[in-house]
Amino acid sequence: MYTPFLLLIILVIFTTFSYSSYAADFCVADLTAQRTPYGYPCKNSSSVTSTDFVFSRFVTQGNTTNPNKLSLVRAFVDDFPALNGLNLAAVRVDMEPDGVVPLHSHPSSSEMVFVVEGSVTVGFISGLDSNIMYANKLSKGQVMVIPQGFLHFQHNSGSSNAVLFVSFASSDPGVQFVTSALFRNRFPSFLVEKTTGISQAEVRQLKARLGGTG
Amino acid sequence: MYTPFLLLIILVIFTTFSYSSYAADFCVADLTAQRTPYGYPCKNSSSVTSTDFVFSRFVTQGNTTNPNKLSLVRAFVDDFPALNGLNLAAVRVDMEPDGVVPLHSHPSSSEMVFVVEGSVTVGFISGLDSNIMYANKLSKGQVMVIPQGFLHFQHNSGSSNAVLFVSFASSDPGVQFVTSALFRNRFPSFLVEKTTGISQAEVRQLKARLGGTG
Amino acid sequence: MYTPFLLLIILVIFTTFSYSSYAADFCVADLTAQRTPYGYPCKNSSSVTSTDFVFSRFVTQGNTTNPNKLSLVRAFVDDFPALNGLNLAAVRVDMEPDGVVPLHSHPSSSEMVFVVEGSVTVGFISGLDSNIMYANKLSKGQVMVIPQGFLHFQHNSGSSNAVLFVSFASSDPGVQFVTSALFRNRFPSFLVEKTTGISQAEVRQLKARLGGTG
Amino acid sequence: MYTPFLLLIILVIFTTFSYSSYAADFCVADLTAQRTPYGYPCKNSSSVTSTDFVFSRFVTQGNTTNPNKLSLVRAFVDDFPALNGLNLAAVRVDMEPDGVVPLHSHPSSSEMVFVVEGSVTVGFISGLDSNIMYANKLSKGQVMVIPQGFLHFQHNSGSSNAVLFVSFASSDPGVQFVTSALFRNRFPSFLVEKTTGISQAEVRQLKARLGGTG
Amino acid sequence: MYTPFLLLIILVIFTTFSYSSYAADFCVADLTAQRTPYGYPCKNSSSVTSTDFVFSRFVTQGNTTNPNKLSLVRAFVDDFPALNGLNLAAVRVDMEPDGVVPLHSHPSSSEMVFVVEGSVTVGFISGLDSNIMYANKLSKGQVMVIPQGFLHFQHNSGSSNAVLFVSFASSDPGVQFVTSALFRNRFPSFLVEKTTGISQAEVRQLKARLGGTG
Amino acid sequence: MYTPFLLLIILVIFTTFSYSSYAADFCVADLTAQRTPYGYPCKNSSSVTSTDFVFSRFVTQGNTTNPNKLSLVRAFVDDFPALNGLNLAAVRVDMEPDGVVPLHSHPSSSEMVFVVEGSVTVGFISGLDSNIMYANKLSKGQVMVIPQGFLHFQHNSGSSNAVLFVSFASSDPGVQFVTSALFRNRFPSFLVEKTTGISQAEVRQLKARLGGTG
Repeated sequence: MYTPFLLLIILVIFTTFSYSSYAADFCVADLTAQRTPYGYPCKNSSSVTSTDFVFSRFVTQGNTTNPNKLSLVRAFVDDFPALNGLNLAAVRVDMEPDGVVPLHSHPSSSEMVFVVEGSVTVGFISGLDSNIMYANKLSKGQVMVIPQGFLHFQHNSGSSNAVLFVSFASSDPGVQFVTSALFRNRFPSFLVEKTTGISQAEVRQLKARLGGTG
Repeated sequence: MYTPFLLLIILVIFTTFSYSSYAADFCVADLTAQRTPYGYPCKNSSSVTSTDFVFSRFVTQGNTTNPNKLSLVRAFVDDFPALNGLNLAAVRVDMEPDGVVPLHSHPSSSEMVFVVEGSVTVGFISGLDSNIMYANKLSKGQVMVIPQGFLHFQHNSGSSNAVLFVSFASSDPGVQFVTSALFRNRFPSFLVEKTTGISQAEVRQLKARLGGTG
Repeated sequence: MYTPFLLLIILVIFTTFSYSSYAADFCVADLTAQRTPYGYPCKNSSSVTSTDFVFSRFVTQGNTTNPNKLSLVRAFVDDFPALNGLNLAAVRVDMEPDGVVPLHSHPSSSEMVFVVEGSVTVGFISGLDSNIMYANKLSKGQVMVIPQGFLHFQHNSGSSNAVLFVSFASSDPGVQFVTSALFRNRFPSFLVEKTTGISQAEVRQLKARLGGTG
Repeated sequence: MYTPFLLLIILVIFTTFSYSSYAADFCVADLTAQRTPYGYPCKNSSSVTSTDFVFSRFVTQGNTTNPNKLSLVRAFVDDFPALNGLNLAAVRVDMEPDGVVPLHSHPSSSEMVFVVEGSVTVGFISGLDSNIMYANKLSKGQVMVIPQGFLHFQHNSGSSNAVLFVSFASSDPGVQFVTSALFRNRFPSFLVEKTTGISQAEVRQLKARLGGTG
Repeated sequence: MYTPFLLLIILVIFTTFSYSSYAADFCVADLTAQRTPYGYPCKNSSSVTSTDFVFSRFVTQGNTTNPNKLSLVRAFVDDFPALNGLNLAAVRVDMEPDGVVPLHSHPSSSEMVFVVEGSVTVGFISGLDSNIMYANKLSKGQVMVIPQGFLHFQHNSGSSNAVLFVSFASSDPGVQFVTSALFRNRFPSFLVEKTTGISQAEVRQLKARLGGTG
Repeated sequence: MYTPFLLLIILVIFTTFSYSSYAADFCVADLTAQRTPYGYPCKNSSSVTSTDFVFSRFVTQGNTTNPNKLSLVRAFVDDFPALNGLNLAAVRVDMEPDGVVPLHSHPSSSEMVFVVEGSVTVGFISGLDSNIMYANKLSKGQVMVIPQGFLHFQHNSGSSNAVLFVSFASSDPGVQFVTSALFRNRFPSFLVEKTTGISQAEVRQLKARLGGTG
């Protein structure tokens, strides 16, 4: 039993229990503050604007004029502070034909690969005692997922440039490239051989090329 | 020293290989088994092959010959069982110029919108007492994120067709469209008015159009 | 063998005691420190006393002398710092007969409604493609739960005042009211129509009433 | 550039991407199925009705004619299947004057005590090396929280009956009463003494009273 | 179509997308910063060295010359900052024959006991209404697990010294000893009796022995 | 005042006691039921006894008569069903002098290494763009932690046998050995070279040795 007039009054008033200007709805990272295991402290929400939620570094094609014929651009929380607390991140990959994303894993997230352009072979290797290679040649528009923490690669197995949009279920998925981990640091060569079976001769060659020592 | 032809053969072959009967590395959903609050029971890993990890329904453009000029194709866990346990899902959106994804929210996940083609306005509204509209007109290649659970929309504000790849940090993010929630069911009209302020006249009109009753 | 008088003395005294400078058992929010995605930094535990764990703003009935006949008092982490890290929050709702909590959702938590006094209709609408209204008329002492992120309302459908104690599984469940989200901001009217189907005429009327522009 | 007539068509159509009757929005427990560490498999959603979301066993006052002058009624997931996956549970407590909820802890959840009626002393003891008693005498309408896993008690320190509504941030918070754990089983008396310091004489007396042996 | 020479170039270059010296791979606690509910802010990774990841206080046997014939050394996050964010912690236990770890619980973690030396009886009591004692006499090399939050004890039931390595699935598992909680503070004796059934005479004796008052 | 004999009797007896048919306190895995992403369904608790919580396969030294001079015994949930839902697992490692645990990672858990006997070098390599080797030579009693998902190794760098007790913060931490992933399957040799930089000659040698093809 109420009238449009009453409704008018109701609607004018009915959020007046709101006396605060505070909004805890999101937590855009304040990258100047100290990181915690689960993200950064939040930027003051009153200084957050629409553009904070936009990331534009994927717009232009990356420079693939290098032997790997590869460009990687990351949108992790350190690159795109709005990801903080949202459990999402992304990478844009550009590869010329025969270009490759070297074998790597993401310690903190599964991965979803979306082929924006081109034809790309994506493979991951399962663990425990199986060591199965699950690989597929993907065309434009296909999606493939890679379970958390397993070694995988992307290879442009087509004849034109390829573009991938890769998304993650963490704002900071991390990444570890096998070759860099083995050959770009002071991991002693005899231990590389001992823990991988790769011959010291090969190890020393790769270290020489990649800047590793020991 | 390989040829595209050899590569083709290799790729056709090297995914059929499995000598282990056990691999706990992933949990492809057995959709015939009973769902739990955190996903489906796992398909026997010995019957999982490379193609289980691929989703192909995004390859072709959806049919947008409808008044909303919209096509939505979902890759949630029920559509793409490999997502089970990976905390990832996706949607492909096609919109003709002036097409729109109606106002909606995802109860269980934040969202990341990647513009594959076209020019799209994306906006979300914050909660508590702020009700701020954070909206941006995005071009091809730009990314925008939307915090979990908030109302948002996508509108093709450009002059050509638009394609979005939308990803989520849950294998089952859910979705609720405001208009469907209000006007496509038996939500009594007087309660719609009372709880939203929308006039009963308007409510009844919309219900008539959308198939709601009460 | 104790008397109420002795008990009184004991209770007055026995909360002032602390001989340890360290206790990681709880993390009462230091609201002056910078929030993170998962709560506030902890107040120094040596300055935490028994009363930090008590919230008293639910004791008195709220003022319902307004057209919605509604009072909402929140105990979220910003109101009750001891909730920090405990994954709990609450709201006290008072409604006069025919009072209403407008349609809203909580982006970060499920909800449990306990009817302290009166007779209240509580309903929520499911998502995806179902749009089912699950509604019940509850009496004093009954409990109803509402899954995370879905639109719901409470309406005093009885003839006396109603009191609800509503609890959440998050210390910061958030809230979004549909009507405020649509009509109390600069959400352009043509986009409200386009994304909801509500006629621009209705939209403009509601905006005028609620203070929205655009 | 569209007309109300076009809008009509739009609205009729704009959710026709919905071709499924499936709803994954909630997961009411199927108690006949096998429990997992994180809840029960879901009851088929097509057989879920509004009343599944309601719990009515808190409506009537419990029987407090017992030495503890206490009634406890639980709404854990085994009692109220809709709690499955919602991270919420509750208990109704009735105590006559001087009634008590014996010292206990909840292994899997923090707790929020809301005083519905009466005047109740609630206390918990912190851990590590502090052993601080944080206790408060609460009146009707007050709320107190208790961090997960710590020993706590409730005592009706008023002169009238008390009613508490206790909520938890887990659908299965568990509970362990100290006295039952020590004296209602075959915990050997010499080990009770050795691990608690309580004299065997006292232990044997309590075991005799409570039904313990050994 | 590439040569070893090209490969050399590739490998030299192929991580040159790395322009940052930042490493978010771990989050060693900065104990001087303010704790949050989920750990400490991170020490600057450029000042983290290999030794940060090592804990050496378990090397030497603890002093067991005390009534419990017990030594406990903790490696919780406050003792071993590298545990921050890793969800791991440990305790070294030394017990002389007939030594005991008094009855206690860990509010935030399950526990895994590994017998390094000796023969030890470990028991825990289940909750709800079961109060079952699950106990085993373990020999060197055996492992037993204890579910989160339940009361348990360890007793050197052998004839030689025992050493345990106990691990936890939280960097801050917490601990509460029943006897300390009851008898080492100002928990009023009448309330101890009322909430546990232990006679006030016994309570006062134990308080006198343990330093409790009230 | 008890004798070992009495204790023996007590301990034999006091675990056979159960008068309740319900206990949700733990969830010992029913390995015959279908696994979910977060563990197995629970064995009926009425059939759970004390010994379910004990794992004895670490008692005897493993066979290290192999090229790696290594024995690994796993206590993951598939080996020790009581781990289900407890977020804990373990491995016993035995290494002769110069024995080695080959380079590997655990996709789902951080790791804590406890040196039971001997002197062992443990190292892990950080990710992103840092590739820092964090390595330490540990003595008996020392502990070292390894963040989730990063490549690491253990090497017996002492002159006597070494024993490690390794614990994890997951009941199913998974494992992936780099060498097996690269050389024990059909990962095409040209792709191994392309994605790691290791020469095809070396790759083919290792495949021949390890049983890989392609």
